[in-house]
Amino acid sequence: MAKQSAMSGFPEWLPHQRMIEQRVLDVLREVFELHGFVPVETRSVEPLDQLLRKGETDKEIYLLRRLQADADESDSGLGLHFDLTVPFARYVLEHAGRLEFPLRRYQIQKAWRGERPQEGRYREFLQADIDVIDRDTLPFHYEAELPLVIADALRRLPVPPIRMQVNNRKIPEGFCRGLGIADFPGVLRTLDKLAKIGAQQVHAQLVDTAGCSTAQADACLALAGITADDTSFVDRVLALGASDPLLDEGLEQLAAVVESGRDHAPGLLLADLSIARGLDYYTGTVYETVLVGHERLGSICSGGRYDALASDGEVTYPGVGLSLGVTRLLGRLFGQDQISISRKVPTCVLVALPDEASRSRCAAIAGRLRGRGIATQVAPAADKYGKQIRFAERRGIPYVWFPQDGPVDQVRDIRSGEQVDADADRWTPPADDLRPYLGAIAGEDTA
Amino acid sequence: MAKQSAMSGFPEWLPHQRMIEQRVLDVLREVFELHGFVPVETRSVEPLDQLLRKGETDKEIYLLRRLQADADESDSGLGLHFDLTVPFARYVLEHAGRLEFPLRRYQIQKAWRGERPQEGRYREFLQADIDVIDRDTLPFHYEAELPLVIADALRRLPVPPIRMQVNNRKIPEGFCRGLGIADFPGVLRTLDKLAKIGAQQVHAQLVDTAGCSTAQADACLALAGITADDTSFVDRVLALGASDPLLDEGLEQLAAVVESGRDHAPGLLLADLSIARGLDYYTGTVYETVLVGHERLGSICSGGRYDALASDGEVTYPGVGLSLGVTRLLGRLFGQDQISISRKVPTCVLVALPDEASRSRCAAIAGRLRGRGIATQVAPAADKYGKQIRFAERRGIPYVWFPQDGPVDQVRDIRSGEQVDADADRWTPPADDLRPYLGAIAGEDTA
Repeated sequence: MAKQSAMSGFPEWLPHQRMIEQRVLDVLREVFELHGFVPVETRSVEPLDQLLRKGETDKEIYLLRRLQADADESDSGLGLHFDLTVPFARYVLEHAGRLEFPLRRYQIQKAWRGERPQEGRYREFLQADIDVIDRDTLPFHYEAELPLVIADALRRLPVPPIRMQVNNRKIPEGFCRGLGIADFPGVLRTLDKLAKIGAQQVHAQLVDTAGCSTAQADACLALAGITADDTSFVDRVLALGASDPLLDEGLEQLAAVVESGRDHAPGLLLADLSIARGLDYYTGTVYETVLVGHERLGSICSGGRYDALASDGEVTYPGVGLSLGVTRLLGRLFGQDQISISRKVPTCVLVALPDEASRSRCAAIAGRLRGRGIATQVAPAADKYGKQIRFAERRGIPYVWFPQDGPVDQVRDIRSGEQVDADADRWTPPADDLRPYLGAIAGEDTA
Repeated sequence: MAKQSAMSGFPEWLPHQRMIEQRVLDVLREVFELHGFVPVETRSVEPLDQLLRKGETDKEIYLLRRLQADADESDSGLGLHFDLTVPFARYVLEHAGRLEFPLRRYQIQKAWRGERPQEGRYREFLQADIDVIDRDTLPFHYEAELPLVIADALRRLPVPPIRMQVNNRKIPEGFCRGLGIADFPGVLRTLDKLAKIGAQQVHAQLVDTAGCSTAQADACLALAGITADDTSFVDRVLALGASDPLLDEGLEQLAAVVESGRDHAPGLLLADLSIARGLDYYTGTVYETVLVGHERLGSICSGGRYDALASDGEVTYPGVGLSLGVTRLLGRLFGQDQISISRKVPTCVLVALPDEASRSRCAAIAGRLRGRGIATQVAPAADKYGKQIRFAERRGIPYVWFPQDGPVDQVRDIRSGEQVDADADRWTPPADDLRPYLGAIAGEDTA
């Protein structure tokens, strides 16, 4: 086997980084469950026609083919999923008879996209999704609730604060109708490029390809320029002169989402009428989220309300969901050394080995400590104690246990050098040493 | 979207089954960490030449191809990994400079094989692996330790007891040498079919294809017939007349593994000299594990010692590992309804909604309960209380919270009907109701 080199777009963490990732996932899962979400895991593959349902061929799907496929066997027609929303919609249809609706589910899984890798974009990445899905109709209030769940989770983690930008699809659609613009999808697609190509180019495209008059294009750009952390955006939108019942409904809903945010998570939400989201299945509130101080990373948590994603022709299951990009978030924090863990191994105690013949006795000591929840391993070899202590030091194991001939052993805190008598059935480390825990490393970008 | 049907070989669990699976994984992870193993996660894909290194083309690898690959772009040369051992060996080589050796790692991940699905065999499945890997040399004692870690994990779960069958590759190899049989790999491959084709056919193949004399084939079958839960197998092997230093070393090591099992986990280990394991990279102890009462399911935990799997030409990293088939285990227990969870949702309390205008007040109550670790959700709609209670009942949510106008609310245990005054900052459910927990369902196969 030759020397190995990393594969672009397929990140792999070192063990202590994986420990950080696991603890982050623990918090996400705990908070999602505190909010009454049930876990779902779907298979990693879907039939290709499922993945292409919404014409999202730009997702760069990975197809599967069996290496030993028979010569006359065509491709399996299976691909790796590129998100967790499409598989969840399929799961709901497949298992509908055995699910309770409204269904609050979370799903933490890998997804794959054959995109060109760059910072924040990976070919294999971990997503943490929450969705509420119901049969036939879905009350609006879930659109206000979901951002609060994400905020509750992230505020328990040592990560920079987030700001979630919200909009409602009904606003630009009603606005276009009110102004007599026919090509609403075209307008939305064009506005979605605002951050990338700037106002001037967007204006030109609105006129050239979306069929707007200059005045209509001006109005669309004025709409997209509106942001507010309170409901003041409503009057500003209405002042632009468009009038339509759908616009009114969108403004009312967005105002309710923003109000709910102000009540339960001040500073979280920003109404931003430029937010469009590329996916054409959104029909109500849409969300994007920036990590404060890392705005250029792009959205770390996006989603929205969808009405027709899951339908078997007879029953439709409308839903609303948010998808947190765990790999994008952690990739950034790892890259900038902005998240840490109190030690790099789970082990709290290394039982020193006086001689190889004592291994069974030392294993029994380790077993007694483990029986009380203290992570313990026995030294790999009966080296001189100095070498065994350095083994612990290099790994950040805080305690070394020295078996004694009498009934009581000794344990040393190798950071302070303090060594005390100890009984494996009674000794307990300080709570902070029992398990590794997360911390932030203050950087330029964090408060 | 048409009605969906399940895809053979790609199991998907219902939410409450996923809750069971997660709690099983929690226990595995907790115990692995108690024993000082660090977590590693590798990417899901490997270069094809990596996957084919040991000639394991019968693993039915899934190759990847980008849907939008350019016409002149050949296949990506990437495949999904079929186990966690080969990727881990590659990971060790790739990251060796940043790892501490000996490295104790666990890895809990999906793997994929394009095999024909049948009970216990899946195309996508979850494995939980532990390995200890070192640089240049690996002390033997880890071969005795690993089975104890698995046993420690499984005895904390409501699953049937296990019996781990152990052998040592040096025994059949030394035995063949001692008898003057040249084709040791051929003998091993043939003996590996014993359970499938029976002694008579194995005997015929040993003579016809592995080049044994009748007497040699008799001796090999006699060797493979030996089992013992203590070290008595040593004399029985020696009585078959083969003599070789490698045989002696294998017998000594296997005796040490069995002795260690008797000391620390009585009843766990059975020396079974028929165990061969198909993979040709094993060089010392090999393991297979049956679930007692489910022997026909096949091994749920296999592995062994390998000396040359990870090598960059200059440095070799010998290791020993065990791989627990989580999907095989749970697929069986789910299929026979032999494992249960105390309720089917995480939610402990449903806050009833007197009217839609009270939603924000009810959300605040839910937040106070969650702040003290009590999983809570607010009712989806302000239906009559009877309907809201049935909503909780259908999901197995044990408590319904009734907001009152005064400072104190009321909470009802909907199983007993008992309703008491309660303050959201003080009320706590009994410990058994706080979180769902695992239990066994007594079946024919369990004690």
